[in-house]
Amino acid sequence: MVGKGERTKADIIRKTADLFNKQGFLNAPLSSVIETTGIQKGGLYRHFESREALAHAAFDHAVGQIAVRLLAALSSQSNACDKLLALLDSYDGDETDAPLPGGCPIMNSAIESDHADEALRRRAQDAMNRWRDLLAGVVAEGQKVGEIRAEIDANDVAVILIAAIEGGVMMTQLSRNPQPLQAVRRHLRAYVEGELRAKSDGVGA
Amino acid sequence: MVGKGERTKADIIRKTADLFNKQGFLNAPLSSVIETTGIQKGGLYRHFESREALAHAAFDHAVGQIAVRLLAALSSQSNACDKLLALLDSYDGDETDAPLPGGCPIMNSAIESDHADEALRRRAQDAMNRWRDLLAGVVAEGQKVGEIRAEIDANDVAVILIAAIEGGVMMTQLSRNPQPLQAVRRHLRAYVEGELRAKSDGVGA
Repeated sequence: MVGKGERTKADIIRKTADLFNKQGFLNAPLSSVIETTGIQKGGLYRHFESREALAHAAFDHAVGQIAVRLLAALSSQSNACDKLLALLDSYDGDETDAPLPGGCPIMNSAIESDHADEALRRRAQDAMNRWRDLLAGVVAEGQKVGEIRAEIDANDVAVILIAAIEGGVMMTQLSRNPQPLQAVRRHLRAYVEGELRAKSDGVGA
Repeated sequence: MVGKGERTKADIIRKTADLFNKQGFLNAPLSSVIETTGIQKGGLYRHFESREALAHAAFDHAVGQIAVRLLAALSSQSNACDKLLALLDSYDGDETDAPLPGGCPIMNSAIESDHADEALRRRAQDAMNRWRDLLAGVVAEGQKVGEIRAEIDANDVAVILIAAIEGGVMMTQLSRNPQPLQAVRRHLRAYVEGELRAKSDGVGA
């Protein structure tokens, strides 16, 4: 049973996550939160003890939205290289089917917080580490079963994929044009096929 | 002849560029500008008609600092592939020899402004386009003289290099660890050598 209070709180978090991902987890003004949620300041502070607590809840929700899409892409395939390709395909530069507007919440909060707010920076770093470890784990699993070349550093692969995707998302958001992300995706597809995929592809391994 | 007023103005811009690149071109508070520059509010407004005018001057200065390093790297080599490698080498993840603290001012202002401030977004987009066009020009020149494979899209190469570098800078700034940027750099070096460099490398072309 979810009471009205909890439904209201979840609704505030969802709407605020969209707002903060566009205008800043630290810097979007409270007046915009009030306008977006339709809840007055007193009501907001009944559900969240501070502006910071709301920002952290919104960040966690935003990261959760991204994680759902990420995990769906990875679990849609069994071969490790195909998992990585499915992940790339989920970044098509089309804002209309993004999990939330405004680009990647981890990158957005990283840039905003890295020299400005230690609590948000740590949260962003933890989320980034989880993402990196998840992809490195996919690569390491693929290496174990002979789908990905053994001599490759799994952690480096995860960093390269994330860095290029994030840079592509940033350029596409800035230019409001899917082209940069599409160019990055083509490059990373060729990297997965040409550098990562084991020639035998696990057959007979 | 540069008067005292102009020297003071240049000093404000330089110090504010460092501050804004770390804490936000839009969002760093005026109190921090006053603290960093040692100039009171009235003094700042004698030199800049608004907070926005100061932000734009600081952004242009920050981009200029990056451009100096970028152009020095590119002009240190004559072969187009070697120019790109020299550019990569200038991103070594060592903050102490960066042109200014806080990472890339174009990415920082892009993330901060893309859904929040149209004037800064346009400035960031213009700077990004100039960087992309500069690198695409290096690639196109290299193709003309047979140093870079003719079948490659010069604009795509520029986007891929910039996206991966920016993502690597973001991850290195977030984790305060040079490793992500170093992994990206190794990947891009292999890309330049393996995918871009023409096999004949211009000899006999």
